[in-house]
Amino acid sequence: MKRITILINCKDSKGIIASATNFIHQQSGNIVYIDQHVDRVDDMFFMRLECEFSKDVFSLKVFKNIFAEVIGKKFEMNWQLHDSDSKPKMAIFVSKYEHCLYDILSRYSSNELEVDIPLIISNHPDLEPIAKSFNIPYFCIKVTKDTKQEAEEEQLRLLKEHNVDFVVLARYMQIISPKLIEEYKYEIINIHHSFLPAFPGAKPYHSAYERGVKIIGATSHYVTEDLDEGPIIEQDITRVSHTHTIKDFILKGRDLEKIVLSRALKLHTKRKVMVFNNKTVVFT
Amino acid sequence: MKRITILINCKDSKGIIASATNFIHQQSGNIVYIDQHVDRVDDMFFMRLECEFSKDVFSLKVFKNIFAEVIGKKFEMNWQLHDSDSKPKMAIFVSKYEHCLYDILSRYSSNELEVDIPLIISNHPDLEPIAKSFNIPYFCIKVTKDTKQEAEEEQLRLLKEHNVDFVVLARYMQIISPKLIEEYKYEIINIHHSFLPAFPGAKPYHSAYERGVKIIGATSHYVTEDLDEGPIIEQDITRVSHTHTIKDFILKGRDLEKIVLSRALKLHTKRKVMVFNNKTVVFT
Amino acid sequence: MKRITILINCKDSKGIIASATNFIHQQSGNIVYIDQHVDRVDDMFFMRLECEFSKDVFSLKVFKNIFAEVIGKKFEMNWQLHDSDSKPKMAIFVSKYEHCLYDILSRYSSNELEVDIPLIISNHPDLEPIAKSFNIPYFCIKVTKDTKQEAEEEQLRLLKEHNVDFVVLARYMQIISPKLIEEYKYEIINIHHSFLPAFPGAKPYHSAYERGVKIIGATSHYVTEDLDEGPIIEQDITRVSHTHTIKDFILKGRDLEKIVLSRALKLHTKRKVMVFNNKTVVFT
Amino acid sequence: MKRITILINCKDSKGIIASATNFIHQQSGNIVYIDQHVDRVDDMFFMRLECEFSKDVFSLKVFKNIFAEVIGKKFEMNWQLHDSDSKPKMAIFVSKYEHCLYDILSRYSSNELEVDIPLIISNHPDLEPIAKSFNIPYFCIKVTKDTKQEAEEEQLRLLKEHNVDFVVLARYMQIISPKLIEEYKYEIINIHHSFLPAFPGAKPYHSAYERGVKIIGATSHYVTEDLDEGPIIEQDITRVSHTHTIKDFILKGRDLEKIVLSRALKLHTKRKVMVFNNKTVVFT
Repeated sequence: MKRITILINCKDSKGIIASATNFIHQQSGNIVYIDQHVDRVDDMFFMRLECEFSKDVFSLKVFKNIFAEVIGKKFEMNWQLHDSDSKPKMAIFVSKYEHCLYDILSRYSSNELEVDIPLIISNHPDLEPIAKSFNIPYFCIKVTKDTKQEAEEEQLRLLKEHNVDFVVLARYMQIISPKLIEEYKYEIINIHHSFLPAFPGAKPYHSAYERGVKIIGATSHYVTEDLDEGPIIEQDITRVSHTHTIKDFILKGRDLEKIVLSRALKLHTKRKVMVFNNKTVVFT
Repeated sequence: MKRITILINCKDSKGIIASATNFIHQQSGNIVYIDQHVDRVDDMFFMRLECEFSKDVFSLKVFKNIFAEVIGKKFEMNWQLHDSDSKPKMAIFVSKYEHCLYDILSRYSSNELEVDIPLIISNHPDLEPIAKSFNIPYFCIKVTKDTKQEAEEEQLRLLKEHNVDFVVLARYMQIISPKLIEEYKYEIINIHHSFLPAFPGAKPYHSAYERGVKIIGATSHYVTEDLDEGPIIEQDITRVSHTHTIKDFILKGRDLEKIVLSRALKLHTKRKVMVFNNKTVVFT
Repeated sequence: MKRITILINCKDSKGIIASATNFIHQQSGNIVYIDQHVDRVDDMFFMRLECEFSKDVFSLKVFKNIFAEVIGKKFEMNWQLHDSDSKPKMAIFVSKYEHCLYDILSRYSSNELEVDIPLIISNHPDLEPIAKSFNIPYFCIKVTKDTKQEAEEEQLRLLKEHNVDFVVLARYMQIISPKLIEEYKYEIINIHHSFLPAFPGAKPYHSAYERGVKIIGATSHYVTEDLDEGPIIEQDITRVSHTHTIKDFILKGRDLEKIVLSRALKLHTKRKVMVFNNKTVVFT
Repeated sequence: MKRITILINCKDSKGIIASATNFIHQQSGNIVYIDQHVDRVDDMFFMRLECEFSKDVFSLKVFKNIFAEVIGKKFEMNWQLHDSDSKPKMAIFVSKYEHCLYDILSRYSSNELEVDIPLIISNHPDLEPIAKSFNIPYFCIKVTKDTKQEAEEEQLRLLKEHNVDFVVLARYMQIISPKLIEEYKYEIINIHHSFLPAFPGAKPYHSAYERGVKIIGATSHYVTEDLDEGPIIEQDITRVSHTHTIKDFILKGRDLEKIVLSRALKLHTKRKVMVFNNKTVVFT
């Protein structure tokens, strides 16, 4: 069996679901999952389908062409088609914090994440031993004010060379350049250590402590040019009290960061996230 | 516009989604919501559809007949069809605790619950003033060992007389008879004050205190003949510590009971819950 | 037995705990609860004590004088002494939303809140029937741009006349004047329908929807002159998704508002909250 | 400065707090933390104190003797005295699951856990490479029906040889012998992958799936002779739905297990847990 995932997004109108499901049925496909959403404010339609086809007769290329012709054009859809056989290639960017890296790599080595990790890129050499212990190539590209542009070009070159599909910033402490963001639109996932939109920017735990909040959070989002304002994929929180110091906030926050980032990675990897109007539709 | 909700449940097979969606399209209906689930262990298919039809030409009776003939028979479906125009009629059973009753009635009076409440039945007279302040008829039917059977017959008679669709046990402290359960299969909703299957039966807060748990819960479920073992609709929890007494558990638990029961009521009212194998499929 | 609660706050130094506990022992008191906190950043000490004294010999007035002399002066303390026999008097301010009012009053009528409620003040007549059904006097004081000052004076007069100890704003939709805030410093409790400091000001649910957050919250805080920036007493959150409309946010938020506000009320009533540096110490 | 932690537990009576705090003051100590709890059902008193002494003059041995004589005897206390300078030595027991081991070791290598880890013991060789990458000795002791007793003796010998203070069972899939439990009373910490007392024993995720619960949990507890019935230190939960398979339960559960176990380890390491009547008092 060949399993493919179809993501659809277009203006809402009558008959989209019937047309799409009927089309797949006519192509001898079996729908094993369907989920849809209509944004009533913007009148937009979103759908995610998983279908199975017999391997003998199915051609992905042919299917794509017919789908585009028969369905895509009719409803003026944006659509993506993913072959479940091929694992996406994920690059990890890190700086000096190791907790998210350890978390991702231990999940990876337990086959919990359905990705390949061709490389890790860092602006510091510190975490190379961890990469090594998991047998993943580690590239240290220093980023200074003077070398920023070169560094970015080198990063992009490495991503292209390794056919990277998407990037995870596992507490990478540098701002990503517009060029990289454009090349990997909605394919760069960041973890921010606060409950956005509260406490954007640097040192959110310090600000949270200062404000005297009773709950702290973490937010995973796609990176856009507006810092910490990209579409939110996942958030979670934990309770704090007056007894906790900033150091306690940071330690408790680490656990949140790991959990929230790993959930976002899984959702993205399984193609369950669609972006519209700087917001996400996250299918279950 | 006429809006109807269709719930479907049958053995899984190819083409169900395409057949059903196509059928609705052919009947000039527009699907505004679709959700489906396949239980891979039991190979069962579940689907919930909301569709809109033009009021002028649509006949519910005709639609039902054709649906049964064309789709229902083909896949040997269990199916239900609900007209969104008619509010379900809900009876409330209470004893002496008022918190769940207050909560339900204040939601009802804020139009948060899409139900009619034709009557409240109790085995005690205590809560009649509350019923009165919301202008809902209150019937006190005492239940003793000797009068149990008569009482149940009177309850059933009242439910029938008021065309009650489903019953909520808002901390009703009597066991429901098999006859009533059979008449209202998966239409009687209970709130149990523990995180089932932990602490079934009487005095769960006492047992939870005794065991020294760090979290207590509440569970809303359909009533079946096996006490506290019916299909779970919703659960939630709250943290406790050694500083909390049993009285604290009870007070904290009340808030859980109210929230969990009201969530279950809303899900049931919107026909989002399907039951199979003593478990629920809860569509979002 | 006479039970009193002592709240202490002063610069941290050696021997405070020993001095205070020893003093109470010498006065033939028995400490039944002690909790303390040291803010290491500001080097401040906080303590909450509950003590029991034999009724025959104990004079609150005498105790206060000696405590002030022996302990208070020595450590330059701010301290408060509360007699557990007397229930605090709480005024409720409302506008048109009834959910928080219903929630507070049903808790009050179940003896869950250890307060007296001498009056409810509103800028609208709408909720008077609810007040009536709980037998609580309801004063409607219209607030317009022209009458704002008079209205505030009338409010203050009523609070004084009824010996009100503290005020709860149960979704009261007017800004409180500096004069009232000063008269009831850290004695006015508000519920804000967002996870502060995210989404302060008007229409937070709309802003949360717009931003596409995955979690919404509610915050109860003391009112200060800086709108929505007073010391936070309690916060809680609930998950949302792309399937929820703004109306859903509002409905889900209501449950949060009720729970969070009632928790804050209980903490305040039991004198478990101390304020310093615009933050709270909340003893358990 | 010398910092020590004192844990006290005795029948409740008047003056314990004043006596203990006064005693420490007389010994020129400064109390930096005090927390206490009275179990009103069993009339038991619990207290945790952290005190600082000047290093020059303080003798732990002398202090212990005087404390025992002056305070301990007077109130017939059980008491423990811990020197904060010395890190406790923790042994890890594992079988084949690596997620808890990875989690503990990555926290250990980030200095998040204030312990030494002299050795890891397993009944399988599988996880030795992980131990190696963190430079921790790994002892594989096979356990079969025939060798069970020998194996346990070998385990005990290794624990003694390495001066182990407490043991963490990081998903160790063997039952611990009464002898080991007795030697390390309330010093063996287990993580059970359910919300106890629901689903004790083997395969809790399977049972949870079968029952159709909407929430799954994990529980960390001290090991006693009654399987899964020891004093609970910490619990937490996560939501599940009909869309989740048993495999999903297991994956989601892993994150719970890691978090809950690490919290329990931190509480135990900081001497914040006291046991009485098969329940825990957990100071904050």
